[in-house]
Amino acid sequence: FQSKLPGVGTTIFTIMSQLATEHKAINLGQGFPDFNPAAALLSEVNRAMQEGHNQYPPMAGIPALRQGISAKTQALYGHYYDPDTEVTVTSGASEALMASILAFVKPGDEVLVIEPFYDLYIPAIQLAGGTPVIVAMLPPTEQTPLYRVDWQHVRDAITPATSMLIINFPHNPTGINLQESDLDWLERIVDETGIMLLSDEVYEHIIFDGQQHQSLARRESIAANAIVISSFGKTYHTTGWKVGYCCAPKHISAEMRKVHQFMVFTVSSPMQVALAHYMKDPKPYMELSDFYQEKRDRLARGLAKTRFVPMPSQGTFFLLADYSAISDLPEAEFARWLTTTHGVGVIPISAFYRQPDAKESNHQLVRFCFAKQDHTLDAALAKLAIV
Amino acid sequence: FQSKLPGVGTTIFTIMSQLATEHKAINLGQGFPDFNPAAALLSEVNRAMQEGHNQYPPMAGIPALRQGISAKTQALYGHYYDPDTEVTVTSGASEALMASILAFVKPGDEVLVIEPFYDLYIPAIQLAGGTPVIVAMLPPTEQTPLYRVDWQHVRDAITPATSMLIINFPHNPTGINLQESDLDWLERIVDETGIMLLSDEVYEHIIFDGQQHQSLARRESIAANAIVISSFGKTYHTTGWKVGYCCAPKHISAEMRKVHQFMVFTVSSPMQVALAHYMKDPKPYMELSDFYQEKRDRLARGLAKTRFVPMPSQGTFFLLADYSAISDLPEAEFARWLTTTHGVGVIPISAFYRQPDAKESNHQLVRFCFAKQDHTLDAALAKLAIV
Ligand SMILES: CSCCC(=O)C(=O)O
Ligand SMILES: CSCCC(=O)C(=O)O
Repeated sequence: FQSKLPGVGTTIFTIMSQLATEHKAINLGQGFPDFNPAAALLSEVNRAMQEGHNQYPPMAGIPALRQGISAKTQALYGHYYDPDTEVTVTSGASEALMASILAFVKPGDEVLVIEPFYDLYIPAIQLAGGTPVIVAMLPPTEQTPLYRVDWQHVRDAITPATSMLIINFPHNPTGINLQESDLDWLERIVDETGIMLLSDEVYEHIIFDGQQHQSLARRESIAANAIVISSFGKTYHTTGWKVGYCCAPKHISAEMRKVHQFMVFTVSSPMQVALAHYMKDPKPYMELSDFYQEKRDRLARGLAKTRFVPMPSQGTFFLLADYSAISDLPEAEFARWLTTTHGVGVIPISAFYRQPDAKESNHQLVRFCFAKQDHTLDAALAKLAIV
Repeated sequence: FQSKLPGVGTTIFTIMSQLATEHKAINLGQGFPDFNPAAALLSEVNRAMQEGHNQYPPMAGIPALRQGISAKTQALYGHYYDPDTEVTVTSGASEALMASILAFVKPGDEVLVIEPFYDLYIPAIQLAGGTPVIVAMLPPTEQTPLYRVDWQHVRDAITPATSMLIINFPHNPTGINLQESDLDWLERIVDETGIMLLSDEVYEHIIFDGQQHQSLARRESIAANAIVISSFGKTYHTTGWKVGYCCAPKHISAEMRKVHQFMVFTVSSPMQVALAHYMKDPKPYMELSDFYQEKRDRLARGLAKTRFVPMPSQGTFFLLADYSAISDLPEAEFARWLTTTHGVGVIPISAFYRQPDAKESNHQLVRFCFAKQDHTLDAALAKLAIV
């Protein structure tokens, strides 16, 4: 047989985590917390198991969890998704993304992806027989120190063959957020082209400096064409539980569910029951931004005392830092070197580009994850101070 | 957009479970136990969570669980799968099946499916762009009261375009097992054609009357071309946890993992840690056949006193029963009628056929699930006695 995904290797997150483990490095690479979820949430899981929630839950998720997701989305973003037909619980955001892409991308379709991008999108498009079309973000400059999307550029890339535009804000790895003016642009693009939007919003509750998350669910005209995906993993420090969800209009959800139904059928019942109870209290997700903003600031302050130059992060639990004062190595090599000789694992930004080598010459950036205990961040900073 | 799976509706298992719930019927339809997993296993999950196993486990599964699966498979079936490269933990058997089909079936490929078949196979093949080619089992006769596979028929259906043969033994819904002579046939077919086998063995530990499970892992020459899939859901009464696995030679596993990596990335960490501990003791799965054989006998004995005629079941937690002495209704209608007017939910066998209507005329069978507490089976039998 021939491989259907010849270009795919092990994800960079796995590779760098393994390297960090082998070299006993502090792992600020792969995006996961080094602390436990709330004890109350763990107790809920235990209770759900004891109470007998261990057999197949409904295919789309247990009703109470879908209702909770619907209520939260409406409270925060204004749009009402019918829990019965428009909310689907998935095996993490990954499964929601893959099922959506497989449900809607046909052989020969073009799918727009904004670069830098999360590594799942391209293989998923290829598996569906589609062609990824990459639109590069504008890189940071002295005047505008953040990455930016050139929406005119996105608009111009849409052809009759384009079936979907994938976006991801708060953005991994750059940490930029959507602003209202971006939603204006998206509204215009949807209006002019009718394109379907696939919106990966897993960092929706990690937004800094008083900004608001500009979910696509905030605008009715966009939401009518959008699949909005999120996850409990980033919000409740449960990345290993693999519970995410997907909100979309009924006729879109129906097609996505056809794939979900045969891809995993359903998602862990005790976790669903526990999350349905736990999410009734908005406090944990309402306080999450402040919690992570302190960590962002701790890391950024510390990095500012090193030869790394941290970039601003508006959201996510990542920040980028420039290492050009330290080394001329390309990003992948620098990341390996930092991990193996200085004991701090990071992710090279080149991993988020289609042609890593072509791009590596343009910037020298690595991604730090600050979803770590303060003492972990401090220990890493001590090591980075002598790089 | 056009649907990529226009023929797909809600699975029969969901439909019949909903109907049973609405009518407060005893649900002997969808295949799941109505009792809890072992308390020791639940404690292991709780312990794993408390000990901090709540973040991303490795993509292919935690090493201890992969080692446990490898050791069990070698002990029972003789073949050694390298835990690092040949065993992958999946989100239930469903995900293992879907990932395997998406990894290996290309647009235009033919895939052989033996009918009656589990409802996932055909949509998965279609999603990959393949064409399902159906080979019917020989129906039971007076002389041979069990369904049988005509392997010559299977062999004859293989063309140069065939990329895969899907099998499922112990077989859902007929309850038949593979015998050694079937493995001889499969060996010959693989030898002559080099075809890849996808083997859904989720009922491997539920085998009656002293028979042995004829896993494809028992024959080296078959195992070299086979993907062997199983699940903890059926074995440990945890259908709602969605933890399964897939064993295949390294070069096959590598391609399957490329899809798995982007489909779900990985599987619930606390469940994996718990199962790795729990499966060290072979007792629970070694005793499972006896446990279910008693339930099969209880149901069959009870049915024999009604106007249903139970068929033999060699494995799985299902048995078929003929209702032609009761009604002339086609299977789907009979199943609805039984659920709504007599309070016992069952699955019509027509749901396992490509053209339910064409087949319904040939037999009048419904499937009973006996993974139920004795009092549940007895209560159902009391209702069935007056049908
Ligand atoms: C699925 S592992 C990757 C986790 C993550 O989202 C990241 O590190 O970017
Ligand atoms: C995924 S729901 C179906 C459960 C099952 O395997 C069956 O009832 O056949």
